[in-house]
Amino acid sequence: MSNIGVIGAGYWAQNMLRVIAGSSSSELVAVAELDESKHVAVGHHYPGVRISTDANELFNDDAIDAIYIATPPETHGRLALAALRASKHVLVEKPIATSAVATEALIEEAYVQQRTLMVGHTFLYSPPVLKVMELINNGTVGDVFYVDSQRVNLGKYQASGVMWDLAPHDLSIILHWLGEVPISVAASGRSFRSTGREDVCFITLDFPGGAVAQLQVSWLAPVKLRRTMVSGSQRMVVYDDTSGPEAVKVFNHGVDLAAPETFGEFQLSYRQGDIWIPRLDTSEPLTNEWEHFIQCTKTGRHPRSSAEQGLAVVKVLEAADRSLKTGHREPVEWRTREPHIPQPRFEALTDTTVVN
Amino acid sequence: MSNIGVIGAGYWAQNMLRVIAGSSSSELVAVAELDESKHVAVGHHYPGVRISTDANELFNDDAIDAIYIATPPETHGRLALAALRASKHVLVEKPIATSAVATEALIEEAYVQQRTLMVGHTFLYSPPVLKVMELINNGTVGDVFYVDSQRVNLGKYQASGVMWDLAPHDLSIILHWLGEVPISVAASGRSFRSTGREDVCFITLDFPGGAVAQLQVSWLAPVKLRRTMVSGSQRMVVYDDTSGPEAVKVFNHGVDLAAPETFGEFQLSYRQGDIWIPRLDTSEPLTNEWEHFIQCTKTGRHPRSSAEQGLAVVKVLEAADRSLKTGHREPVEWRTREPHIPQPRFEALTDTTVVN
Amino acid sequence: MSNIGVIGAGYWAQNMLRVIAGSSSSELVAVAELDESKHVAVGHHYPGVRISTDANELFNDDAIDAIYIATPPETHGRLALAALRASKHVLVEKPIATSAVATEALIEEAYVQQRTLMVGHTFLYSPPVLKVMELINNGTVGDVFYVDSQRVNLGKYQASGVMWDLAPHDLSIILHWLGEVPISVAASGRSFRSTGREDVCFITLDFPGGAVAQLQVSWLAPVKLRRTMVSGSQRMVVYDDTSGPEAVKVFNHGVDLAAPETFGEFQLSYRQGDIWIPRLDTSEPLTNEWEHFIQCTKTGRHPRSSAEQGLAVVKVLEAADRSLKTGHREPVEWRTREPHIPQPRFEALTDTTVVN
Amino acid sequence: MSNIGVIGAGYWAQNMLRVIAGSSSSELVAVAELDESKHVAVGHHYPGVRISTDANELFNDDAIDAIYIATPPETHGRLALAALRASKHVLVEKPIATSAVATEALIEEAYVQQRTLMVGHTFLYSPPVLKVMELINNGTVGDVFYVDSQRVNLGKYQASGVMWDLAPHDLSIILHWLGEVPISVAASGRSFRSTGREDVCFITLDFPGGAVAQLQVSWLAPVKLRRTMVSGSQRMVVYDDTSGPEAVKVFNHGVDLAAPETFGEFQLSYRQGDIWIPRLDTSEPLTNEWEHFIQCTKTGRHPRSSAEQGLAVVKVLEAADRSLKTGHREPVEWRTREPHIPQPRFEALTDTTVVN
Repeated sequence: MSNIGVIGAGYWAQNMLRVIAGSSSSELVAVAELDESKHVAVGHHYPGVRISTDANELFNDDAIDAIYIATPPETHGRLALAALRASKHVLVEKPIATSAVATEALIEEAYVQQRTLMVGHTFLYSPPVLKVMELINNGTVGDVFYVDSQRVNLGKYQASGVMWDLAPHDLSIILHWLGEVPISVAASGRSFRSTGREDVCFITLDFPGGAVAQLQVSWLAPVKLRRTMVSGSQRMVVYDDTSGPEAVKVFNHGVDLAAPETFGEFQLSYRQGDIWIPRLDTSEPLTNEWEHFIQCTKTGRHPRSSAEQGLAVVKVLEAADRSLKTGHREPVEWRTREPHIPQPRFEALTDTTVVN
Repeated sequence: MSNIGVIGAGYWAQNMLRVIAGSSSSELVAVAELDESKHVAVGHHYPGVRISTDANELFNDDAIDAIYIATPPETHGRLALAALRASKHVLVEKPIATSAVATEALIEEAYVQQRTLMVGHTFLYSPPVLKVMELINNGTVGDVFYVDSQRVNLGKYQASGVMWDLAPHDLSIILHWLGEVPISVAASGRSFRSTGREDVCFITLDFPGGAVAQLQVSWLAPVKLRRTMVSGSQRMVVYDDTSGPEAVKVFNHGVDLAAPETFGEFQLSYRQGDIWIPRLDTSEPLTNEWEHFIQCTKTGRHPRSSAEQGLAVVKVLEAADRSLKTGHREPVEWRTREPHIPQPRFEALTDTTVVN
Repeated sequence: MSNIGVIGAGYWAQNMLRVIAGSSSSELVAVAELDESKHVAVGHHYPGVRISTDANELFNDDAIDAIYIATPPETHGRLALAALRASKHVLVEKPIATSAVATEALIEEAYVQQRTLMVGHTFLYSPPVLKVMELINNGTVGDVFYVDSQRVNLGKYQASGVMWDLAPHDLSIILHWLGEVPISVAASGRSFRSTGREDVCFITLDFPGGAVAQLQVSWLAPVKLRRTMVSGSQRMVVYDDTSGPEAVKVFNHGVDLAAPETFGEFQLSYRQGDIWIPRLDTSEPLTNEWEHFIQCTKTGRHPRSSAEQGLAVVKVLEAADRSLKTGHREPVEWRTREPHIPQPRFEALTDTTVVN
Repeated sequence: MSNIGVIGAGYWAQNMLRVIAGSSSSELVAVAELDESKHVAVGHHYPGVRISTDANELFNDDAIDAIYIATPPETHGRLALAALRASKHVLVEKPIATSAVATEALIEEAYVQQRTLMVGHTFLYSPPVLKVMELINNGTVGDVFYVDSQRVNLGKYQASGVMWDLAPHDLSIILHWLGEVPISVAASGRSFRSTGREDVCFITLDFPGGAVAQLQVSWLAPVKLRRTMVSGSQRMVVYDDTSGPEAVKVFNHGVDLAAPETFGEFQLSYRQGDIWIPRLDTSEPLTNEWEHFIQCTKTGRHPRSSAEQGLAVVKVLEAADRSLKTGHREPVEWRTREPHIPQPRFEALTDTTVVN
């Protein structure tokens, strides 16, 4: 049983608080939240848990083994560093930090302290994302030619713009699927709502193995659409995150059909092969993520959503930010100040196992 | 090349006229249509074709080999009989006739004249219906437990009621799939629009092999819904005729899942196995049907949509009519006055061949 | 703050335990569960809650205001009666009891004790069901002609058969929508898996106002399908419980279209009017249900899912059981032994309010 | 009644041949097709029509009023010019020509001859495309922020690459919707199948009014996907060309919802407002296009799919070709050699009228 401290008790934190409190491997011990108006609700839901406004209380409590951080992005780096220096294991929400420099400092500190540092790329623990990973790894998809991704939301304005808000999800997914960090990125964006920062961005990534990825992230939609197409030499996969148990569709190549005779048939005859909708695990991603984190703290195993992957995502976002300014394709340099930060590893999942 | 005469040039006949005119095995020679206002359009689309108001002209023309009849249902029996007596091959639209007695007379005459008599059960030539047939025949579905069918339309009022208008489609499909004629039928209906005849009917069929079928036919809907579920011991198939190339979905049984933890997941975890959407041929049913008819006239082969199947459908409808009056389940008697009318045969399609 | 005791800690009870523990209007005080192996998990998730194997402990505890019962159906009547006699408010899972006689005794006792007695017809607190209710009540649907409902599951065998397992859901929904108790019911069923009780049933209900309802319940499917069509004089509504936020589709009647020219277009031109997919509340049905119950205990308000509705559902199921045996349509008699049991009231929801 | 000559009798031409032969405003008089093996089929389907291998026969026939050209793209310019010089009205398949220079020569000649010159942008006559146009023009969408378009196919290799094969469809649609010619274009592509020309391209367009469009065209998919999203200040529209009668979905903005409590609900709560699926006309685009062309030849009306629009599409493709080479965003210059070629006009459709 690990003793857990949580920093932040806002909307997203509440989800993880529920998961931590319900986990048989964890004991929720203390919560730090600056907004005192949230203390009562936490106290009601989790009787016996210590609540304060001071994160230092958690760092200074020797009984606490691990800390979960779900505060605004600009505080991630500072709080995670303090937690690691206090020799705690750390799970920090995405983005891991708001700069590559800050992220490298975290990785270095985790290395020195020999503690687990993991970033909350929740989609890497979600059954449809893992199913696509499996389909890529076992050869079903063949060589991945390109990935096209759409993530549109009715977004709430945030000072950092839509790219830093939404793209980390897709970047964490696509880097994991392709098992590579892109070599360059081109980004363009607009601020249609005149908020000063982009509310829609189009991002193109070039990968060393030859694959291309294209992302659209937008706050302008009245609906959540999350749709990703993976085009491979053997099959095409469409992952639609709003289609519940039919989220992953696999399209087989098939034989040539006779030419249709009417425009109506022309519209109808849109596919050549069978479609396969694989069964998906119904486990909850947040629970999968949390149990994986706890297991890593105990075994020393490198987390699936590692800090190095968090760093790769931040580096891509920084290069995309440069591209937004220059209008040119910008390289993603992996060179780090700290000599021992390796390129991230990406797990090769060869079976349907969701957790661990 | 067969010489073809067509009786009727209304809405549905026009579809088949186009198919006949475009067929390389047929020559459209003459059309008989009582409504003279339709003659101009026929003349424009099919220059060189003879047009009259008198069907006898077609019967008396020795150059005509086969006749297609697409007139109102109550005239089917009389016209088909006259055509057979004139020694023509006959394809007549569904229902083959409006009584079993009349149908038997047709079968007898076709036997005497040694001519092909076929009924226009077009769905037996439609790729999704044939795909389900194949899935039943090759064991994919297993034993068929029951079939549940919904066919709702924004219907135009017809004096014979919704059952005789729409149910022949489903009956022809289901009898073909199960390869049997039901032993009894129970029907209930309502006339919500107060037109004197039912505008919605619910029909239950019991089959000798133990299967059950349940049909809903309705004119009350503002939308065309055609959805049939086949529940088998091995798999379930859903055939949705409005889903284009994804019309047939095969649901595999799968493993048991852990109990979901929230109502949300309860809603989501709705399936246990993979789904498979087989590729469908894109051939046009009407073309398939027509070429099959011509081939039968040439080879003497018994048609897939045989007159005996047409008779079985009419017998079921007659029994259902009795059930609407008595409120009881009514037997479907196969005993015919003519001794040599066999129970219909149903083709066992064991490959994906659509025609012939 | 109400003090709550819970009887039963199985799969379904766990959902409600989570809701009760998270409610700010309730205090989870004690749980009774015969299976001691489940006590540890309850203790872990709900520290401070009393756990025993004896429901009497809860009845005898004066500090407990209300009791939630989620035990096997055959124990509902006995436990609910004991709880009411101990002057507790009671929320009991569906079916409220396994006979009308037992249900009437509960209603009588609740009347005598002046306590709230509510049955867990959870779907009456689910946003799509309430949206359809609203569409009926505000005239969007017009006169309801008929309701056709499909509920198929990969079912686990239960001694009472599929009808008592699944049909209570649809009956509670349909009676609520139509605001009436049916006057007669016809049911047929089969035991394809040879388990002794039906694993598929077809049920037809006749309502005093002229509407008809048709239900299919089945354990034979490898997939959860829940699809209900409401055909009205003004519009048709399709409620598909597996379509998430697009669960309710409203089909408008529209103008007549020109006849299609090809079979392909014929298949395509399946609708005449617009479709409207109303926004649905995303509140959780279980939470809505629980808060409604607590409010009723405090205000004396008659619950939406009242015991009289529970009685109506049981009476329909008993008549359907008779019909399964006789093969005939059976009347649903409302006459009760207890003089003061009224026909159930059905709330007319005229706005989108989900709870209260 | 116009007398029509057709050049080309390949796959696509056959569709239009059927439409022309069936039109009551046109008389199909002669067909020119180099491949003599196709002459028999044409003769069979259209008895009485003259067939040759020489297009000049058509140009020299004074009885022919208008010519439809459906030959390989590289011959469009030459044949259309010859037809115009012979004073025929011309409908030529897309692309109108393979260079802007050649297109301008066509426009000039049509001006001199006072003949109708129209390009076969069939989608401008398709009901869903026109419905979206109407939604933009009547203010439903509000200001168009951006358009995102996906068109993937199991493509057959063509020497000109996927962009010239598929992008003309989307360009004709998007230019029409926005009513503008883009000011610059950036394109990137890959040749994954190593055929020498791109088999997937990503294209970004900047419009003078501030809107952005993003296109993906690909031959690499085993399935036809055609999906276009229009994001506007008032509403979002998704046009999915493979969804038949539900091809156009309009998403309303709605109110804010309470934060969901679980990841499951988070996934579910993906939209905030109602969805509206407008009824679509079921008329056939090819028929609409043809009748529009004939009407323009008679009234002198400027066609909806005008040669100037065809020129705009070609200019965008030429700029995109430059961008593929330079890797930079390239301007789309409208300046033409011929002084009197105006910027194309785009019809403002303010009602649901599909044709004329």
